[in-house]
Amino acid sequence: MTTVSLATLNAADQAAFVAALGDIYEHAPWVAQAAFTRRPFQSVAALHEAMMEAVNAATPDQRRALINGHPDLAGKAARAGTMTRDSRAEQASAGLDRLSDAEFARFHELNNAYRQKFDMPFIVCVRRHGKDSILRQFECRLQNAPASELNAAVTEIFRIAALRLDQRIEASDRLPVHGRLSTHVLDTHRGQPAPGVVIEFLELSKDAQPRLIASALTNRDGRTDAPLIGGCPLPIGRYELRFHIADYFARLDVRQSDPPFLDIVPLQFAIAEPEGHYHVPLLVTPWSYSTYRGS
Amino acid sequence: MTTVSLATLNAADQAAFVAALGDIYEHAPWVAQAAFTRRPFQSVAALHEAMMEAVNAATPDQRRALINGHPDLAGKAARAGTMTRDSRAEQASAGLDRLSDAEFARFHELNNAYRQKFDMPFIVCVRRHGKDSILRQFECRLQNAPASELNAAVTEIFRIAALRLDQRIEASDRLPVHGRLSTHVLDTHRGQPAPGVVIEFLELSKDAQPRLIASALTNRDGRTDAPLIGGCPLPIGRYELRFHIADYFARLDVRQSDPPFLDIVPLQFAIAEPEGHYHVPLLVTPWSYSTYRGS
Amino acid sequence: MTTVSLATLNAADQAAFVAALGDIYEHAPWVAQAAFTRRPFQSVAALHEAMMEAVNAATPDQRRALINGHPDLAGKAARAGTMTRDSRAEQASAGLDRLSDAEFARFHELNNAYRQKFDMPFIVCVRRHGKDSILRQFECRLQNAPASELNAAVTEIFRIAALRLDQRIEASDRLPVHGRLSTHVLDTHRGQPAPGVVIEFLELSKDAQPRLIASALTNRDGRTDAPLIGGCPLPIGRYELRFHIADYFARLDVRQSDPPFLDIVPLQFAIAEPEGHYHVPLLVTPWSYSTYRGS
Amino acid sequence: MTTVSLATLNAADQAAFVAALGDIYEHAPWVAQAAFTRRPFQSVAALHEAMMEAVNAATPDQRRALINGHPDLAGKAARAGTMTRDSRAEQASAGLDRLSDAEFARFHELNNAYRQKFDMPFIVCVRRHGKDSILRQFECRLQNAPASELNAAVTEIFRIAALRLDQRIEASDRLPVHGRLSTHVLDTHRGQPAPGVVIEFLELSKDAQPRLIASALTNRDGRTDAPLIGGCPLPIGRYELRFHIADYFARLDVRQSDPPFLDIVPLQFAIAEPEGHYHVPLLVTPWSYSTYRGS
Repeated sequence: MTTVSLATLNAADQAAFVAALGDIYEHAPWVAQAAFTRRPFQSVAALHEAMMEAVNAATPDQRRALINGHPDLAGKAARAGTMTRDSRAEQASAGLDRLSDAEFARFHELNNAYRQKFDMPFIVCVRRHGKDSILRQFECRLQNAPASELNAAVTEIFRIAALRLDQRIEASDRLPVHGRLSTHVLDTHRGQPAPGVVIEFLELSKDAQPRLIASALTNRDGRTDAPLIGGCPLPIGRYELRFHIADYFARLDVRQSDPPFLDIVPLQFAIAEPEGHYHVPLLVTPWSYSTYRGS
Repeated sequence: MTTVSLATLNAADQAAFVAALGDIYEHAPWVAQAAFTRRPFQSVAALHEAMMEAVNAATPDQRRALINGHPDLAGKAARAGTMTRDSRAEQASAGLDRLSDAEFARFHELNNAYRQKFDMPFIVCVRRHGKDSILRQFECRLQNAPASELNAAVTEIFRIAALRLDQRIEASDRLPVHGRLSTHVLDTHRGQPAPGVVIEFLELSKDAQPRLIASALTNRDGRTDAPLIGGCPLPIGRYELRFHIADYFARLDVRQSDPPFLDIVPLQFAIAEPEGHYHVPLLVTPWSYSTYRGS
Repeated sequence: MTTVSLATLNAADQAAFVAALGDIYEHAPWVAQAAFTRRPFQSVAALHEAMMEAVNAATPDQRRALINGHPDLAGKAARAGTMTRDSRAEQASAGLDRLSDAEFARFHELNNAYRQKFDMPFIVCVRRHGKDSILRQFECRLQNAPASELNAAVTEIFRIAALRLDQRIEASDRLPVHGRLSTHVLDTHRGQPAPGVVIEFLELSKDAQPRLIASALTNRDGRTDAPLIGGCPLPIGRYELRFHIADYFARLDVRQSDPPFLDIVPLQFAIAEPEGHYHVPLLVTPWSYSTYRGS
Repeated sequence: MTTVSLATLNAADQAAFVAALGDIYEHAPWVAQAAFTRRPFQSVAALHEAMMEAVNAATPDQRRALINGHPDLAGKAARAGTMTRDSRAEQASAGLDRLSDAEFARFHELNNAYRQKFDMPFIVCVRRHGKDSILRQFECRLQNAPASELNAAVTEIFRIAALRLDQRIEASDRLPVHGRLSTHVLDTHRGQPAPGVVIEFLELSKDAQPRLIASALTNRDGRTDAPLIGGCPLPIGRYELRFHIADYFARLDVRQSDPPFLDIVPLQFAIAEPEGHYHVPLLVTPWSYSTYRGS
């Protein structure tokens, strides 16, 4: 995906502008066209605002058409490979491209129920959710009244658009669409950060095996060089951090029992705020540990 | 298994005495016979001491015969059902009666290697070990020199005898063969013990799924009514406690995120001292927790 | 003070009964006389109940006289030495016998204001309070309406009577008038209880220097041999525990900085429930510690 | 004090160079003169190095004269006001300008003992110490052998010079002479940083009352806007942080006991590394807290 600077967009003619931003709203280049008249934009936030206003100013039929332009989640378009590139990448980010047959069937069933009740596809900004969370959203929103569900769909479309703009445009500001998850290990036996601790980071799922997302090694500050998740929303879901503590203390020749009282320490926690900052540290001796949600 | 009081034993004639204690040492009623001459016994500890002295005073050939009277671990006798009742129960306590074919093959291989090197069966007091720990003992002790391994076998036979005496005899003293594992949950959000918390207690294994040993509910003191393990040795191994924390705080209407930051809190730890006291508490709020080895 | 058994009381004639219990209610032997008719008592709780019922069944004038029979707190009777032995000991327990002139003047002022407003002495069960707490009670209750303050006075008289009964009578039951304050030190550096730690226990006061109540040494379980307070109510107030941690780790040759990061660790906390159980432990390494209200 | 840029110094003639740096070494402009020949300096570290080399290359008599040019700590020169401006400010930083008569007498006694044994003044970089720590250094170093004490004096002179250079010179690099002490308050009751918590920071002394160094209020990140100490060495000594926790939870309407179990939480700790980073956080609920040395 190529990016484009805000300056270039501000200087572009309408054709170039719409070519660059026509797909921010799925199959709805008219949103970019409407926003074009509001140039120049001081910030990507202003551009995002202008596009949202264009959607809000459109007729109910236009909005309904915008909604209907979205593909089903894990639907036939996905299997057939006929989704837009953006939608494909987004659905893959939540693992919707590697569903088991049972899961695919469940999505199929929910998609049908949703279309039958609301006469439109179910829309959710999947980058903000893990697979379990999407299913939970699906089941909850099926209970809504049609009017509030129309609103919910537009809110999600705005979130999708914000993330697409964030990836597409270079500007001096950033949309507030990113969360951050970090950890660090403090060795309270020695009173120092713990370097060289192997950390595994996994996504938990109600019905599937834990899925390894990342492995990392703590640096001399007891932190990972990069956040565990950064530069994107934190998908709502349950996670586990595994800290290889016995190996760490063994390297320091610290007395441990045999087998060591603590070996791999698992911390399980949930992310509920995709744009939040989560700091989940481990304070540890060979005989005790504690953790907390920091920030 | 019927029990017998120390007073009855002290008053018994030799035939009755040996009938009662002849199988404390596997296929070696001569140990009870030798101990009989040392009556009366003030305590079960004195009786245990007298029987150990009888073994130590025996000839090397007698000791070798005592050792050879023990069955293989998870061996043919086990499959054929020809072990003594005590040995059968002991091997079952460590799960040696429900091995997979691969595990059975591994034991078979180790038994052969051990017999080939030492010309005797591998003896370990299995009630003090989980399955992984027995395999680790097996592999370590295969490296020993024959002389030290003879000693190791007798040490283990004494441990087995102590546990059999502990189960057989009623006396005012108890042999120091028991460990204790307990937990409690302290709600540091409210500053009170946490009642009604569901706790699951599982044995972990390198190659198998966690095995549920017990479920419990905390009482008004935040403790379980009985220790998680008590009245027997703590099998060396790795364990997990799972505390259902989100449910607990939900019942109290404490604000939690959605999904709750902490749901089921897993604590994994190892037991290394079968006769030790392990207290593994959880201090918890909806946003933090800590644990430690207490006593 | 001599004690008397419940059995003896149940067998006593009225004169002996009243001789033994006539001073449980200050200058009001009629309470014991009335209770005498209810013999025999199965428990000290039943006796206490009977005496309270006698007070409740008395005329308003009798109750008013009972109240007026009590001395002022830290009043002229105290200085003149004309209080009953019980009242003298009770007031001394809260330090009312060692007031500064300014404090004495403050009590004098409050006594006058209270008598002027309610036409009776201020009554509080002083064994349940530290000096600061008594003053705070005084100031709060001065704001009450007369009717509710009459009730409050009787409630306090019942508490005083319960504590006097608890000290006077030997029975198989005990009145629930005792609290307990305990601590223990867990060395999470070694994963064991910390023996030999010097602990100082002090009462804090808003306007005075901390007052040392007790010193103790942790035993091999990391606990003190006796509770810091036990067998009596816990006086409401603020306290400090001081744990000599650097000395402890120095004896174990544990590496510490120079000067040690932690030396004497102070924990300050308040007691608010005189009949409660407070457990205030210290979990400590040379570089970290934590505490909590346990039970 | 005016500062001068490294560029200006590199361009200066010898007279201007010595005018700017002649007092970096006490009464020893020859050090600056010698360093002048090594221009230009790429960094303040290179300049510091050149000046140290000049001292090391000097004759023993010159070094002895340099040492003897230093004033006594809290000595007659201090009382007479005849010290250099730098020495005056440095001694004041450690509180040596506000000694009690007893402390002054103790310094007088130590100064005499030191001069008698070593025939030179006692030199220590006082900005790296609190008053108690200076006295301890004094007493320890009095035990040294003369040769090692000569070395110690030069080491301290280099530390003094480094701090004077750090304050005098603007350059793109900084000498590693600064420590940092910070704190933060995490509310583990709510799982968020605790804003608006009053914090007092005090220096503790063996023989004197605690001395308030700073008060601060936590910001929305639960931190203080500036470090408690920064931009200078951390004086070796004992300190106390006091966190006004009951007020904080009261503002949030969190249930607390009356009086609150925790009110002002004191954390006492020592600084042993003047150039270190100390992070001393408080994790707190109304019923529990923990702290640790972080970094």
